[in-house]
Amino acid sequence: MKPELGVCYYPEHWPEAMWADDAAQMVETGLTWVRIGEFAWSRIEPQSGVLQFEWLDRAIETLGAAGLKVVLGTPTATPPRWMLDKHPDMLAADENGNPRKFGSRRHYCFSHQGYIDESTRIARILGERYGKNPHVVAWQIDNEYGCHDTTLSYSAAAQQAFRHWLAERYGTIETLNRAWGNVFWSMEYRNFSEIDLPDQTVTEPNPAHVLAFRRFSSDQVAAFNKAQVDTLRPLTDAPLLHNYMGRILDFDHFKVGADLDIATWDSYPIGFLSDRLEADDAHKTAFLQQGDPDMQAFHHDLYRAVGRGRWWVMEQQPGPVNWAPYNPAPLPGMVRLWSVEAVAHGAEVVSYFRWRQAPFAQEQMHAGLLTSNNHPAAALAEARQTADDLNSLGAVQQIQAKVAILFDYASDWAWTTQPQGAGFDYFRLVFSAYRALRRAGLSVDFVSAKDIPADYSVIFAPGLATMDPDLEQRLAERCDLAILGPRSGAITRDFQIPEKGRPGLSRIDCDVDLVETLPPTVERTVKGGGAARHWIDRLSGTAKDLLSFEDGTPALKAGDGIWYLAGFPDADLWDRVIAMAAEEAELTLRRMPQGLRLRETANHDFLINYNAGPVNWNGLTVEGCDVKILKRNPPELT
Amino acid sequence: MKPELGVCYYPEHWPEAMWADDAAQMVETGLTWVRIGEFAWSRIEPQSGVLQFEWLDRAIETLGAAGLKVVLGTPTATPPRWMLDKHPDMLAADENGNPRKFGSRRHYCFSHQGYIDESTRIARILGERYGKNPHVVAWQIDNEYGCHDTTLSYSAAAQQAFRHWLAERYGTIETLNRAWGNVFWSMEYRNFSEIDLPDQTVTEPNPAHVLAFRRFSSDQVAAFNKAQVDTLRPLTDAPLLHNYMGRILDFDHFKVGADLDIATWDSYPIGFLSDRLEADDAHKTAFLQQGDPDMQAFHHDLYRAVGRGRWWVMEQQPGPVNWAPYNPAPLPGMVRLWSVEAVAHGAEVVSYFRWRQAPFAQEQMHAGLLTSNNHPAAALAEARQTADDLNSLGAVQQIQAKVAILFDYASDWAWTTQPQGAGFDYFRLVFSAYRALRRAGLSVDFVSAKDIPADYSVIFAPGLATMDPDLEQRLAERCDLAILGPRSGAITRDFQIPEKGRPGLSRIDCDVDLVETLPPTVERTVKGGGAARHWIDRLSGTAKDLLSFEDGTPALKAGDGIWYLAGFPDADLWDRVIAMAAEEAELTLRRMPQGLRLRETANHDFLINYNAGPVNWNGLTVEGCDVKILKRNPPELT
Amino acid sequence: MKPELGVCYYPEHWPEAMWADDAAQMVETGLTWVRIGEFAWSRIEPQSGVLQFEWLDRAIETLGAAGLKVVLGTPTATPPRWMLDKHPDMLAADENGNPRKFGSRRHYCFSHQGYIDESTRIARILGERYGKNPHVVAWQIDNEYGCHDTTLSYSAAAQQAFRHWLAERYGTIETLNRAWGNVFWSMEYRNFSEIDLPDQTVTEPNPAHVLAFRRFSSDQVAAFNKAQVDTLRPLTDAPLLHNYMGRILDFDHFKVGADLDIATWDSYPIGFLSDRLEADDAHKTAFLQQGDPDMQAFHHDLYRAVGRGRWWVMEQQPGPVNWAPYNPAPLPGMVRLWSVEAVAHGAEVVSYFRWRQAPFAQEQMHAGLLTSNNHPAAALAEARQTADDLNSLGAVQQIQAKVAILFDYASDWAWTTQPQGAGFDYFRLVFSAYRALRRAGLSVDFVSAKDIPADYSVIFAPGLATMDPDLEQRLAERCDLAILGPRSGAITRDFQIPEKGRPGLSRIDCDVDLVETLPPTVERTVKGGGAARHWIDRLSGTAKDLLSFEDGTPALKAGDGIWYLAGFPDADLWDRVIAMAAEEAELTLRRMPQGLRLRETANHDFLINYNAGPVNWNGLTVEGCDVKILKRNPPELT
Repeated sequence: MKPELGVCYYPEHWPEAMWADDAAQMVETGLTWVRIGEFAWSRIEPQSGVLQFEWLDRAIETLGAAGLKVVLGTPTATPPRWMLDKHPDMLAADENGNPRKFGSRRHYCFSHQGYIDESTRIARILGERYGKNPHVVAWQIDNEYGCHDTTLSYSAAAQQAFRHWLAERYGTIETLNRAWGNVFWSMEYRNFSEIDLPDQTVTEPNPAHVLAFRRFSSDQVAAFNKAQVDTLRPLTDAPLLHNYMGRILDFDHFKVGADLDIATWDSYPIGFLSDRLEADDAHKTAFLQQGDPDMQAFHHDLYRAVGRGRWWVMEQQPGPVNWAPYNPAPLPGMVRLWSVEAVAHGAEVVSYFRWRQAPFAQEQMHAGLLTSNNHPAAALAEARQTADDLNSLGAVQQIQAKVAILFDYASDWAWTTQPQGAGFDYFRLVFSAYRALRRAGLSVDFVSAKDIPADYSVIFAPGLATMDPDLEQRLAERCDLAILGPRSGAITRDFQIPEKGRPGLSRIDCDVDLVETLPPTVERTVKGGGAARHWIDRLSGTAKDLLSFEDGTPALKAGDGIWYLAGFPDADLWDRVIAMAAEEAELTLRRMPQGLRLRETANHDFLINYNAGPVNWNGLTVEGCDVKILKRNPPELT
Repeated sequence: MKPELGVCYYPEHWPEAMWADDAAQMVETGLTWVRIGEFAWSRIEPQSGVLQFEWLDRAIETLGAAGLKVVLGTPTATPPRWMLDKHPDMLAADENGNPRKFGSRRHYCFSHQGYIDESTRIARILGERYGKNPHVVAWQIDNEYGCHDTTLSYSAAAQQAFRHWLAERYGTIETLNRAWGNVFWSMEYRNFSEIDLPDQTVTEPNPAHVLAFRRFSSDQVAAFNKAQVDTLRPLTDAPLLHNYMGRILDFDHFKVGADLDIATWDSYPIGFLSDRLEADDAHKTAFLQQGDPDMQAFHHDLYRAVGRGRWWVMEQQPGPVNWAPYNPAPLPGMVRLWSVEAVAHGAEVVSYFRWRQAPFAQEQMHAGLLTSNNHPAAALAEARQTADDLNSLGAVQQIQAKVAILFDYASDWAWTTQPQGAGFDYFRLVFSAYRALRRAGLSVDFVSAKDIPADYSVIFAPGLATMDPDLEQRLAERCDLAILGPRSGAITRDFQIPEKGRPGLSRIDCDVDLVETLPPTVERTVKGGGAARHWIDRLSGTAKDLLSFEDGTPALKAGDGIWYLAGFPDADLWDRVIAMAAEEAELTLRRMPQGLRLRETANHDFLINYNAGPVNWNGLTVEGCDVKILKRNPPELT
Repeated sequence: MKPELGVCYYPEHWPEAMWADDAAQMVETGLTWVRIGEFAWSRIEPQSGVLQFEWLDRAIETLGAAGLKVVLGTPTATPPRWMLDKHPDMLAADENGNPRKFGSRRHYCFSHQGYIDESTRIARILGERYGKNPHVVAWQIDNEYGCHDTTLSYSAAAQQAFRHWLAERYGTIETLNRAWGNVFWSMEYRNFSEIDLPDQTVTEPNPAHVLAFRRFSSDQVAAFNKAQVDTLRPLTDAPLLHNYMGRILDFDHFKVGADLDIATWDSYPIGFLSDRLEADDAHKTAFLQQGDPDMQAFHHDLYRAVGRGRWWVMEQQPGPVNWAPYNPAPLPGMVRLWSVEAVAHGAEVVSYFRWRQAPFAQEQMHAGLLTSNNHPAAALAEARQTADDLNSLGAVQQIQAKVAILFDYASDWAWTTQPQGAGFDYFRLVFSAYRALRRAGLSVDFVSAKDIPADYSVIFAPGLATMDPDLEQRLAERCDLAILGPRSGAITRDFQIPEKGRPGLSRIDCDVDLVETLPPTVERTVKGGGAARHWIDRLSGTAKDLLSFEDGTPALKAGDGIWYLAGFPDADLWDRVIAMAAEEAELTLRRMPQGLRLRETANHDFLINYNAGPVNWNGLTVEGCDVKILKRNPPELT
């Protein structure tokens, strides 16, 4: 399948007279997809029960007639003001119980049954009207679940639903008290209706209580999404999708993704670098106008797993955005680079956000392909060029990587609940592994703890909170070498230290005797190079010490096809561990210079240069902000 | 008119037996004005409707008999506790809707009609009693509007009043929806009563919504003030004034000032340096005990404009204060320096705060001219010396400056609403321009966007949010050269990008194609020297590039009597721009050393040295913390 | 009395089958005390009025039979969930008035009469059952008063109680208005029921109001404790105690301690270093795995005073804890060092927290002597070794120190209420004095402002807010030299500047004319070496200047047996002042190297080395993390 380009468009924002010209210019630009409708509820249904579809009919017809394929969004991320008259208690609440009020978006509580019903109602109405429309070729459900910290809600509706969820999961209150260890501090309950949400406690609440609330909250997102999926399925044959965000871990994307056909995500490289990535000033300055060289690829690879191979970029940053602390412009070439990089990682569609910059409201400082007064913005020409490039490139066939990372949303919930040390963060740990693998020239797949669909040479599972009973066996079947730790297998699903100890594995004799967390000013150096920071598992056991800290304690232990890493590695330690793993598993590594990354596909090798200037590597020169595409058969890369 | 000195005094804090001695000592010190009464409501009216004026009669008589002119304050900044029994809902509310409780001051909501009525009631009672009293020579209304973040209130009263204000302004809800772009995110309203205050939204509210609330809130201050003005006007011929604070921008001082006769402000140079000025440690250390060399002059010049030429310092810091993060003492000489500097900028009166340090309550660590146990504090002798100096000096006649800065409170509201980049701040930008002009030896006037009462060589209007249709023409009439940008003419009054683009000027062909904001670690250097930080407008258009960034994009463009600056200048870039403007507009610049400033008046040049040690300049030596006054006719300064 | 070891144990957390083995192993480890029960309310009384004592009977019997002495805790720090059904308004409230909810511990308000009654009820029931039990050899009341910021509560119950407390203290509202200076800002009240708690005011509330609330809140803790003391006294002859925390100053420990027989505290050296001590990175890194060398001794000496000579460590950190920002492990030897150090300072018992790490709930990452799966943790062997050491050592008889520090909780409340400068903190000031004395090789006693039970060469009273009328005389009687300042005698008990000025002493002619606070980037150097930071009292008066600042103003003034220090000393200035005091008072100083401390007892000198490596001093070598015990008669130390 040849990758294609698309764009996000808001016909309701512009005079109808402009629609046909817009559609024509989209086609000229080489775009073939257009997403619409996901925030238009107040125009579709200006009063409860009063439906106005004529404008949307005409918009879809105009776009479709121009040859564009429409992705239609259900508008449930933006319930109109009248919804509050019907359901005054539908608002989400913050952790002090205060309502999160109308006036922006995503103000609903996932647990409010009245709003869930409204959501399926509008989805059904849309499905009935457009489910068989030939121009509506895909459906987006809601928009960016979890964005603006909206997964967790401390409303009355959430409290009620949480109690039901607990009763269903634990059966009796005695089981819950035991599972949570509520005897500690006399926290025992007599019935489920005594259990509040874990907010506003005097000191930290029971981590089992919090983790249960986190699991519940994730389940509510999945259930909310599934309700719309179940509504739309009978009404359309078009694929259903959702647009996820970057570094939002509050709900299990694998679980939501299982009900959908395609995973898409919203890629804002420069916004993410400014807003949600730990890095030193030198790194942030070097990539200020390009984005982090690994952040997009990480999410591409992750969402490829979430979509079971099918994924898009639904919103691609085309210029400065409005929401990060600092919002510089992309360097020339970057919009094309991001687009081609996505395709190299398997994107079926890359869709720019948005067609024309809005002159009003919250995102008026967010660039589009056109300026608000209808001039071409810098990205328009790059989109056109990308379209040409993709036409030349043809189909991009993905191949399976040799290494995989096991990614687990629940581990983030667990470690956020009880970080133990201020520098420890699950994403940061996993991302450091990913970056090290990419620095070694490796392409990477992601897998979930529940599903490892292929065989790998090496699977990395750093920070995996809970080792389900059969996971060790599954890893043994699916890879030659599994690398766990630090903080892997550290708790049960009910947030207890496992009875058999941590990590509690059978194929490696290795126990965590003690855990230490360190301030950022301190590191533990490893003999021969590298160091661990933030987190140290002090290990014992008969498994061989492959690496040791300067004080002689183990830094890396090896069992039968399993290694356990005792600390949060710095870059040098990751490089050593990966080099050792490569030797063990006979992987070929290619040391990549800063900012240059390699992505292998069936027919091409993509060399992606995030640096502002050219890089020489392996006899090749890649210009700054550029992608060099090499043939693979026969290989151009040596 | 010869400038005079005064003092703030609280007869209600001291035994009546001390009053006459206090008055005599004030006169001995050379003071001629005394402000009283502005916090004394609980003594004037200890219970609702029970009035006790005898003590105040005697206090005024005692002070007046000693020869002092009394400024009488209306006590509306400190409603007594009984007011809450009558108006339990009169309290202001914070942005979570929580009441701001009794127990300090300024706890009223500007929108509460019951309290507005109470305020005019007490003003009328005071006016009736003292309006013709020969000793009451001026009236102060309320005290420090906006202090302690009190302009914005999220109370029920404010919500109600805001809806009325919107209905009056927009007429129909459709007009409002269109003006705000509420179609975005389905934020459309069906009627005005659906509109909440813009707080507690999930993510940022519509900036048009916030800006409207900011305009409304400013209007409420002006209306509150005007209600008292209208009450007092028929009762007295004495001038009415208010004491503004430093760097408080939440309401439009020009609008409030238009209803008053004199603008006064409260000048706390050392408190401001510690509490409300961005500067590096070296600067803050160098001026720790003197205050910033430009901060006071900035406000002197600004409030001269607010007062249409008539202005005072109502509260002059006399020693350490109590409210800044750090509260060092002024260096010897500084109290006199501040006083003389104010006079050089046109102050009619400089009044010290306060006569005697209070031994109790919130400000007990705030120095006075006397200590709490009635010994002379350090400032008493400096006040005496200042009085002598002013006697020698005689009248100080102001002259019009050659350059002006256009200052616009609404621009601050706009950019606070949507800063787009974390380092961007309106005051900071304007202050950097002011400092650069002063560094170039220029005296500066301020003008408002609505009123440019004189002709200038150059007018600077950095960061001016909205270009009203006729402002460009007014600038053309009033100056040879107007220097705009960055972020000038960037939005409409309803916070939309103007249809004709940004800045949308007719006398310069220059468009903002793109906006970038930068982290503090990054700057964009200009060819030939200087750099821009925080904010970059990427410009196009045929207007001539006077300066360019290193990447070739324009840094300063020139049209017909208008220049547009593309970024937030650092000190070097400001110096270059001002030098170029001086050449263009035939201004004479005098490069001033750090901490030395020049103020020109009709008959004198004042050289004001904020440094701790002496400075040599232009063949002259000015001692540390001292002022040198030169005759202007014939000029002593070359 | 020979010092002994103990441990904290939770039989309710473990199968009854393990109890006997646990008890036996405790005895084998050399432990003789075991604390139980303080969080077990939900197991003792699972429903209101339904008592289940059988398990506790058996637990006490099992432990007692093994030879262990039991400390039984009243479980009032952890009221069970059913308590809220009976007393929904018993929850403490935060300073926004929000309830601090069930789900952790310490959620009660000290002012809620219903809960006070429940507390004495359960204490009575326990006392009646176990008061004469031969195995129950001591009683702990509640647990860690004030922990998690629980002294202050802004509940309705607290408001009501505060009004009563004020009425009792001030008699008439006129007295209160005068004492607080409520005329300032028209804050006068007409009756006590108008007085709210001092929260949520627009700007800072009257400091007199806040200080009264702080005094009240401390009194409520003392009253709560006394209610249980009065209940238990008739029922048992065993001593009553409470376990205080480190650096919690919100209530007057001397006042609570006066009702108890023994003071105990919970010593977490590594947690405290990370969580609650100002120090630079170098210091925090050097002692990361040992704790600060003076923090434990400070509290040992302080609680020795609180307990009138009788004190324990009730909870001794045995490994990494879970609650600090960073939680590294102790270096080998440190658990023994901390234990022996406590004994050297007079601890009767050192009790480890806890026996076995819990696998569940909030503290599952908190180490014990055993791991959660019942393996020996690192500290078990050190406890065993400590037991042997203590057996060899025999009784440790305390001797009186030559210097004392006057410690005053109310001073912390005052300076927290109105710090005046951001760097000023009472504990920090006192601790800097203590550290300097210990650096000079001195053993230190603490005394309270109310009670100086012995004679000293020098008493230090830095930062003492209020000089009670007779304190100066008491100091004169009890020491050769009293060293006061900075900020001593600065306010009355009602937070006013004293009428006779500050510090208002009769034996030294010295007045504070002016107070300055300084940013951390600035210091005032003293002629001859050293400097003051944060706080400067500018002094006048005829008393002799022993030290002067570079600008000639006094840094240290001397009267008749009283010195007054004008600023917050840095380490060098403290060293100079102590050297001068030593000369004056004929003290012998011994300059100790970093991390090495000396503690003198009747028969031994203890050299305690907090450094990781060995230290040579005075011809002796002390290994890292080790204690060297020298005989005193004849002295081994020269």
